[in-house]
Amino acid sequence: MKKDETKIKIPGFRFSGVIAGIKQAKKPDVALIVADRPAKATAVFTTNRLKAAPVLQGQKAIRGGKLRAIVVNSGNANAATGPKGLKNAFATAAAAAQALKISKSEVLVSSTGKIGIQLDVGKIRRALPAAVQGLSAGNFTAAARAIMTTDAFPKWHVVRGKIGGKPFTVAGFGKGAGMIEPHMATMLAYIFTDLDLPVAAMRKAFRSAVDATFNAISVDGDTSTNDTAVLLASGASGIPPLKPGTAPWRAFEKALHEVCQYLAWMMVQDGEGATKIVEVQVRGAKTARSAKKIAYSIARSPLVKTSFFGQDPNWGRVFAAVGYSGETFDPSRVDIFYGPVPLVRRGLPTPVANEARAHKVMKNKSFRVLVELNGGRGESKVWTSDLGYGYVKINAEYRT
Amino acid sequence: MKKDETKIKIPGFRFSGVIAGIKQAKKPDVALIVADRPAKATAVFTTNRLKAAPVLQGQKAIRGGKLRAIVVNSGNANAATGPKGLKNAFATAAAAAQALKISKSEVLVSSTGKIGIQLDVGKIRRALPAAVQGLSAGNFTAAARAIMTTDAFPKWHVVRGKIGGKPFTVAGFGKGAGMIEPHMATMLAYIFTDLDLPVAAMRKAFRSAVDATFNAISVDGDTSTNDTAVLLASGASGIPPLKPGTAPWRAFEKALHEVCQYLAWMMVQDGEGATKIVEVQVRGAKTARSAKKIAYSIARSPLVKTSFFGQDPNWGRVFAAVGYSGETFDPSRVDIFYGPVPLVRRGLPTPVANEARAHKVMKNKSFRVLVELNGGRGESKVWTSDLGYGYVKINAEYRT
Repeated sequence: MKKDETKIKIPGFRFSGVIAGIKQAKKPDVALIVADRPAKATAVFTTNRLKAAPVLQGQKAIRGGKLRAIVVNSGNANAATGPKGLKNAFATAAAAAQALKISKSEVLVSSTGKIGIQLDVGKIRRALPAAVQGLSAGNFTAAARAIMTTDAFPKWHVVRGKIGGKPFTVAGFGKGAGMIEPHMATMLAYIFTDLDLPVAAMRKAFRSAVDATFNAISVDGDTSTNDTAVLLASGASGIPPLKPGTAPWRAFEKALHEVCQYLAWMMVQDGEGATKIVEVQVRGAKTARSAKKIAYSIARSPLVKTSFFGQDPNWGRVFAAVGYSGETFDPSRVDIFYGPVPLVRRGLPTPVANEARAHKVMKNKSFRVLVELNGGRGESKVWTSDLGYGYVKINAEYRT
Repeated sequence: MKKDETKIKIPGFRFSGVIAGIKQAKKPDVALIVADRPAKATAVFTTNRLKAAPVLQGQKAIRGGKLRAIVVNSGNANAATGPKGLKNAFATAAAAAQALKISKSEVLVSSTGKIGIQLDVGKIRRALPAAVQGLSAGNFTAAARAIMTTDAFPKWHVVRGKIGGKPFTVAGFGKGAGMIEPHMATMLAYIFTDLDLPVAAMRKAFRSAVDATFNAISVDGDTSTNDTAVLLASGASGIPPLKPGTAPWRAFEKALHEVCQYLAWMMVQDGEGATKIVEVQVRGAKTARSAKKIAYSIARSPLVKTSFFGQDPNWGRVFAAVGYSGETFDPSRVDIFYGPVPLVRRGLPTPVANEARAHKVMKNKSFRVLVELNGGRGESKVWTSDLGYGYVKINAEYRT
């Protein structure tokens, strides 16, 4: 851990990350998050019909709107593990509750890693004393590292602000790589704030932030078995409870959005083997929903994504992806831009010299593709990565 | 052309393939198909909202239920070409009609190749005398070669049978590579028979054959801008007109299905850079429609497809793809087989030794993945290819 990483502190929360031996490599694989007092809590879970055991545990735990602790293990997803897996998820919560001397109903469990293997709860149980021992306000990034699986780097983001002269923090860490396609890399995100928030409004704000960020890198419904995002509010800042609709509330919403946005971008950037992050923006659709569907149709297309890798301004692939999105639009009104370069105007290609200019835009690590449908006010942005040799190398390997 | 290729003849039809100079390489790029007398005709076109000009021309031409000629050019898709492109498609039909001294309303035009470039009709016009000159019953495969674009090999299939002691033929050729994903490789197929068929029943039979074959390799709605499949019946066999529901009709339907099936398989096999063809079968779904949606969810997943390339029996990816299909099923009743090897039974993994057996199955050029949902009578089969380095290599290249 680098020295200034210990400076990331969110009043009211302590963290630790330990080695429990669930991962084959001796690397941190259990993160423990503890709120000094019951924190207001809300969560968003995977929409995959195949829900891993910890998701079922989490859905139950979050119902009360308060949490004291979160236990996350990496190395084993506890998915496709049947009734025994569910028992293990609840046993993990119970073990943590016992170690922390709190109620097991205040503990949320998350898992990420291999599918179809029973979780060895004994390993977690044996690691818990050290995890409790290691709890510290400055161990935020140690917890962030303990939840990594195929991630090439740990992911966190911190926003600090002031309300009425008093400082507040919104900070979060997460894991996940290669979103949009492959669907499968579990996305976990844990966001913390020391603000005091009414739980119903906090739920609404979190849902909205998740939709615009994590759900804009992972196709609606095309989520992994374990996806979980949790927001905890300790109220330890000393700032009076925020009221929705006020300026302080908007400051909180802005900070929350920024934390979610950066975590989501980092997940795309860590897209298995990805070399680029591309913003796909669709404007002028009939509705926002239609715009999002079209944006996904482009962002998911392996042909489009390989053209990003090859830095080939192949607007024909983008245009065709708009066409097969299933959405209604008038092809003769479509404009397509790569960065500032127009490649299609009113459905027709622009002079071929523009392709060389667009090729230059595509040499950047990140750029925008804009599709202007000129047919309404619906718009949407999603983020995707390119698809190159690295993706095949990482994902085609025979697991041993 | 190999010597026995000239033996593929369908009474009532003549073919030719010539070089018009539309492709940059001096390779055949115009195919001409002529029926000696007006043939009964039906066609299925792309559902992409962005329809290429020749598709709009073809939809008009097929309305009468009869055709005398088909002109196909490769090298230029005449897509995203606006009103001028449409004019060019009709001009191509008119030029062929003039060269053949037939009505232009009896000519169907298809195009495949680059998007967004205006078609040089002059090149086709100048090539037509040679194309007409070259027309021959034995030139079936020459025409098949003239419609190729990125295809690694030409694709045709011939079925011969007898009805009442008299021989009949159903034969077809097609082009297309890398179906399911990428959506974009245009699929063209032209099927010919010398049977005499009532056009309404012929349309129904063709629709059904296309649904079970071409539409099982290309996701519904996720079609390219130019996809076209045409069935022509000359009646030149001398066999009396077939009646739907009779044994001879079923013989025709079987032959038609076989021709479409083999052409579809060849397209998957020619999947850009593909090394394997995999049948994804889903059984026990609530409905056939639901089964097809789940099968596509598996067949389209880049993570599943890379695991096929890596010969990795990663059933977790298959299971998760079932989960995010959006369809309802009971995870605890799901069985998953690779070839004959069960990897999941009632939602739980089978002994790990089975993975080595499944890995052996995956070494084959083609194998089946079966998902048994045990929740109904709906079933569906789709075919997909693997995704490896070859795919990236072919599709990431900067077009020059």
